[in-house]
Amino acid sequence: MLKVGFLGPEGTFSEEASLLYRKKIGNARFMPYSTFHNALIDVNNGKLDECIVPIENSVEGTIGIVMDTLVNEVNLKIKQEIVIPVQHYLLCKAKVKPGQITEVLSHPQVIDQCQHYLRKNLPKAKIRFAFSTADAARQVAEADVVKGFEVPAAIASNTSARLYGLHIIASKVNDYPDNCTRFVVLAKNDHARTGHDKTSLVFSIKKDKPGGLHNILGEFAKRGINLTKIESRPTKRSLGDYFFFIDMQGHRKDKYVSQAIADIRGRTSFFKMLGSYPKIS
Amino acid sequence: MLKVGFLGPEGTFSEEASLLYRKKIGNARFMPYSTFHNALIDVNNGKLDECIVPIENSVEGTIGIVMDTLVNEVNLKIKQEIVIPVQHYLLCKAKVKPGQITEVLSHPQVIDQCQHYLRKNLPKAKIRFAFSTADAARQVAEADVVKGFEVPAAIASNTSARLYGLHIIASKVNDYPDNCTRFVVLAKNDHARTGHDKTSLVFSIKKDKPGGLHNILGEFAKRGINLTKIESRPTKRSLGDYFFFIDMQGHRKDKYVSQAIADIRGRTSFFKMLGSYPKIS
Repeated sequence: MLKVGFLGPEGTFSEEASLLYRKKIGNARFMPYSTFHNALIDVNNGKLDECIVPIENSVEGTIGIVMDTLVNEVNLKIKQEIVIPVQHYLLCKAKVKPGQITEVLSHPQVIDQCQHYLRKNLPKAKIRFAFSTADAARQVAEADVVKGFEVPAAIASNTSARLYGLHIIASKVNDYPDNCTRFVVLAKNDHARTGHDKTSLVFSIKKDKPGGLHNILGEFAKRGINLTKIESRPTKRSLGDYFFFIDMQGHRKDKYVSQAIADIRGRTSFFKMLGSYPKIS
Repeated sequence: MLKVGFLGPEGTFSEEASLLYRKKIGNARFMPYSTFHNALIDVNNGKLDECIVPIENSVEGTIGIVMDTLVNEVNLKIKQEIVIPVQHYLLCKAKVKPGQITEVLSHPQVIDQCQHYLRKNLPKAKIRFAFSTADAARQVAEADVVKGFEVPAAIASNTSARLYGLHIIASKVNDYPDNCTRFVVLAKNDHARTGHDKTSLVFSIKKDKPGGLHNILGEFAKRGINLTKIESRPTKRSLGDYFFFIDMQGHRKDKYVSQAIADIRGRTSFFKMLGSYPKIS
């Protein structure tokens, strides 16, 4: 049976994405992991067939640790993408008003996604970072609440509210209503051509050379290939050295895409194909 | 007297950057802030003349919250840049071996910068997120240490070791030895031309249009203007909408730079000049 890794515990958005994927593929064994890194490593060494990891959030951008592992440590391909809307909820053990909350716990990225809400509604609450939204909910569920003294709250999913028996104090507290996260399914091989595909790749070019990136983008532009994403990330060598992550419409076996890729490979100082997979419409 | 805001408390890398700047400008009043956001807002509303904030790390990339505030909430310009090397230290209250440590506290980005070290040397230690490296050091200094039971350690600067009376258990535990952070001084106005300058700007373009970014980069390439940085960040509207942050060599009043900027402005759906300032050689 297919073995698929995902970031546990129950109640995280990664679990939500894996439930969606389970509906699609049917019979498979889903195994919770405590870090993205370990899940990727276990697909690479064959202990897992696939893993589901978040790769991009519409507010926070690229999930750095996943990208870095894909570039440096494993040889995996993207075979599916899954996009889920992400709504955050303010959760507390007692039925309080937001103004009574003295401390807010969540994952640092989620705190960032709710910073305007927090500044406006809970300006005096102390912020504490948790390892995941589910971990924040668990900590709040286990804490002693003394009304008017210490009232901790978590920002987490509504699934967490149910799982940890917490009250929803405020709904959809994310600053941007269209907040969504893109997950990818990673495996040893990518997906066959469907005629409605996307392709992801990463490369770097020599720095301090005017026009290097411009020339490479030209190979896509002149063939009318639409880039759906371009992101640069530091190569970690020195300030000013970048990896460029590019998503484009089309499959790597489509004629124009394969021509463009053949033409840019020689101009890069690093190149890695991350795979082709069906586009979510 | 000039009032300059920076992110406190003592012992953070922001304080280190502000000490460097103080040496350069001489007499000024340096005021610690608890968040970057408040410091930027206070320069914008005139309570401060300038503030010093980190904008890019060679490992982690752009500091999102600073970039987002610059784009959306204030009208400030970069007038100086400051680059400082950032080395991390493993600190503990007792003189223990790394393997005896049961828990590691630090800022989430610093944990990311030391992930290989932690996986190799402290694979079983629990990771906890703190609000800053200085906050991690303070928490460790205040914790009870029971050898062989709970031994918390912080990853922080060597200044923090001195300030909070902690032992250095391991030095330079960052995975990439050339780790450095770029700070900028923000004010109402940027810097006059020195002949050895850089210019920063941010723009966005309509998405789903092949070649849009390629055309804009062409205006710099055809004039031989070297781009020293290009980074995309989500506009926070939906997946696939990006702001592009670009740094280039030259001052915005240099002939070729001002021509290129004039030519691209009309092709952007959003444009903001972030200022020209002396380049650090």
